Amino acid sequence: MKKDKIIIVGAGLCGSLLAIRLAQRGFHVAVYERRPDMRKGVEDAGRSINLALSARGLMALETAGIKKIVLEECIPMRGRMIHPLGGNPFLSNYSGRAEDYINSVSRPGLNLALIKEADKFENVELKFESKVISVDLEKAKIKYQLGSKTLEDQGTIVIGTDGAGSVVRRAMMGQTTKLLFNYSQHFLRHGYKELSIHPAVGGGWKIEKEALHIWPNGSFMIIALPNLDGSFTLTMFHPFEGEAGFNTLNTKEKLKAFFEKFYPSLLPHIPHLYEEYFENPVGTLGTIKCYPWQAFGKGLIMGDASHAIVPFYGQGMNASLEDVRIFDEVLEQYGDDWEKVFTVFQDARKANADAIADLAIDNFYEMRDHVDDVAFMRKRKIEMQLEQQFPDYYSKYSLVTFQPNLPYEQAMKRGRKQDEILLEMCGQNDFDKIPLADYYNRLINII
Amino acid sequence: MKKDKIIIVGAGLCGSLLAIRLAQRGFHVAVYERRPDMRKGVEDAGRSINLALSARGLMALETAGIKKIVLEECIPMRGRMIHPLGGNPFLSNYSGRAEDYINSVSRPGLNLALIKEADKFENVELKFESKVISVDLEKAKIKYQLGSKTLEDQGTIVIGTDGAGSVVRRAMMGQTTKLLFNYSQHFLRHGYKELSIHPAVGGGWKIEKEALHIWPNGSFMIIALPNLDGSFTLTMFHPFEGEAGFNTLNTKEKLKAFFEKFYPSLLPHIPHLYEEYFENPVGTLGTIKCYPWQAFGKGLIMGDASHAIVPFYGQGMNASLEDVRIFDEVLEQYGDDWEKVFTVFQDARKANADAIADLAIDNFYEMRDHVDDVAFMRKRKIEMQLEQQFPDYYSKYSLVTFQPNLPYEQAMKRGRKQDEILLEMCGQNDFDKIPLADYYNRLINII
Repeated sequence: MKKDKIIIVGAGLCGSLLAIRLAQRGFHVAVYERRPDMRKGVEDAGRSINLALSARGLMALETAGIKKIVLEECIPMRGRMIHPLGGNPFLSNYSGRAEDYINSVSRPGLNLALIKEADKFENVELKFESKVISVDLEKAKIKYQLGSKTLEDQGTIVIGTDGAGSVVRRAMMGQTTKLLFNYSQHFLRHGYKELSIHPAVGGGWKIEKEALHIWPNGSFMIIALPNLDGSFTLTMFHPFEGEAGFNTLNTKEKLKAFFEKFYPSLLPHIPHLYEEYFENPVGTLGTIKCYPWQAFGKGLIMGDASHAIVPFYGQGMNASLEDVRIFDEVLEQYGDDWEKVFTVFQDARKANADAIADLAIDNFYEMRDHVDDVAFMRKRKIEMQLEQQFPDYYSKYSLVTFQPNLPYEQAMKRGRKQDEILLEMCGQNDFDKIPLADYYNRLINII
Repeated sequence: MKKDKIIIVGAGLCGSLLAIRLAQRGFHVAVYERRPDMRKGVEDAGRSINLALSARGLMALETAGIKKIVLEECIPMRGRMIHPLGGNPFLSNYSGRAEDYINSVSRPGLNLALIKEADKFENVELKFESKVISVDLEKAKIKYQLGSKTLEDQGTIVIGTDGAGSVVRRAMMGQTTKLLFNYSQHFLRHGYKELSIHPAVGGGWKIEKEALHIWPNGSFMIIALPNLDGSFTLTMFHPFEGEAGFNTLNTKEKLKAFFEKFYPSLLPHIPHLYEEYFENPVGTLGTIKCYPWQAFGKGLIMGDASHAIVPFYGQGMNASLEDVRIFDEVLEQYGDDWEKVFTVFQDARKANADAIADLAIDNFYEMRDHVDDVAFMRKRKIEMQLEQQFPDYYSKYSLVTFQPNLPYEQAMKRGRKQDEILLEMCGQNDFDKIPLADYYNRLINII
């Protein structure tokens, strides 16, 4: 075993995958997690219950050899099932290739699987109910609370995978002048609230199982992801203020009238709407960017701790898991020269984290405003045909979602150029008379 | 007297002017300041000792009727005295109008004058050595330390004028989800260090008194502002790393060789360079933006607390004082409907604060890289002639600095368009054969 001891703060998806990978490399790993051991029962109120796992996340899981275990927990989603107001639902595939789909997976289920894997290693210590309260970045020392006691631990390095509210990042903020720590947090004027569709009586799914459902409504929408037990997790994305605002829809009467007007096709599936709506909290939707991610060659932040993004590209978890894969590659190259590893990692990763953050914001507007409009549908139609006929063509969505070897930044740049060309060509009246090969030739020749 | 009690956190330039103006309006004002009473002696280590006071600051001071008192403390600076490496110094006026100049003023001197004014009011309580440690924004309640005691106070409202490290803003950060608090801090890779030129033997100024001096050197520079006692305050703006980096220039030998190479014309004036350089700290240069500036109609931040900027437009203090003038205008209109006042104020001011922050960053590059280059000098030459011949023409610099009735955002937009046109016209070989009226006509017709 190697002598370096690595303290990981946060045993979420990123932290527990990182623990596995570092244990496989022979490091002594101590993982501090403020929540109770999830093997004793799950407590995850207010966080989104299911997530979209796609190629980048799966590739990262496979660096630790655990893709297969995880896929058993997944439901494939082959496209967006759009439920337009007053119209019939239709499926818009994610890709023209049958093998390209995303997966609905339970966050607590996936986390549990990763924790179980991590615990198989002798050189991993898992410390639950241990809330890290401060970090001395220059010494790689942490203070944590266990019950009523305040204890300390010291590692060779500390890695914070402790999410958007990261304590490790807060320690970096406290070293602002030494680190020249750049930081931004930006919130959408929309929040989210979770609801659910129960399983059908006798089991099974009440609406199409293998799809991500969207009820778009201009400036607000509801989405649904399937769960293994036949239920769906719904997420309302609504503004805080205005007619559709969470702060406005504050009585059963208003809520009923609103859903009857804007979500009539969904309403029959959610008889328990009123209880859930008034019980569940409203979450905020924020983007966090910062730089540097490392301090003194002793501390590093990864995942949401360094790049929290909005959920509209289904890439938050995938980006966090991909951090582990890239970190592992850098580690392979530079061994345990931690300052070098941290610096190369952050510089390899920062622009890609920024790119997926910006793409996720773009997609918020696309999903909300455009999935059911004409120009968008024309474009998607052509993109599907292109992907079916030309297997080496990838739409922007496909580049981001199904091309895990292409860094996010490059996917964004190429994807945006493709979109410009497509929207220009689809704006012509005879857009569907243009030979598909002409589309393909213009798109594939983008440098 | 009005019944509303206003707690102001921070008795700096913005806070003390605000206290005066609110006292004049009949409010009960309590000002908390962590530093000792500056009337008992000045303690201001590490902060810049003199500042450029220009039309916006003066106009704000005049809302409280104290412009005249302040001008007695000022030294006019009519232009930039450029000291090119290996060339002769030359003066580049700030404006073609003789009445347009900026003023070098001592920060502690100005602060002292404002504190003395504030203390003339019976309805102002000044509480020094009282360090505010937390703020309850929903109740307008503060906790502060006075010696070893922790005390409380509660007002109708709390206004934070407590600078870039604002405690009131930190309380807003703590309410991130309720306020959807957007925040960013961004640091330049350059820092600053203060040095000085002593008065001439027998009194007087060793170099031109009525100018802001610049020794530009590509990616680094030194500037100097005159003081009333015959001295100059120098500020080195250098990167942290690299050949010219503060972290590299860490021995007397390296420093000597560096100054001999890059600042030969300055060196004879600073025989005490080595003591000052190694004694004085290196400061950071950051931009802070945030939104909202108000919370619950009970708390508000102003000045550097809500918009800290880099010093390269000489507008930081002026913008903070202008905040007070605009706040006073809003107060005049809406009385003590605080939620309304705060909301109207922040929405009137935010875009202007962003604009001057961005202009200040632009000017960093201009001062450092361009003040001695050909295109820039051509442009300045034409601008001077235009301002001399056409009194209603204002260059970008003049719009920002000498047109206090024009909001920063408009000054920025108009100024940038003017610069584009000027750089295009000055790029022509015959730029000085173009009739001045042609320049004027193109510039003045920008919408």
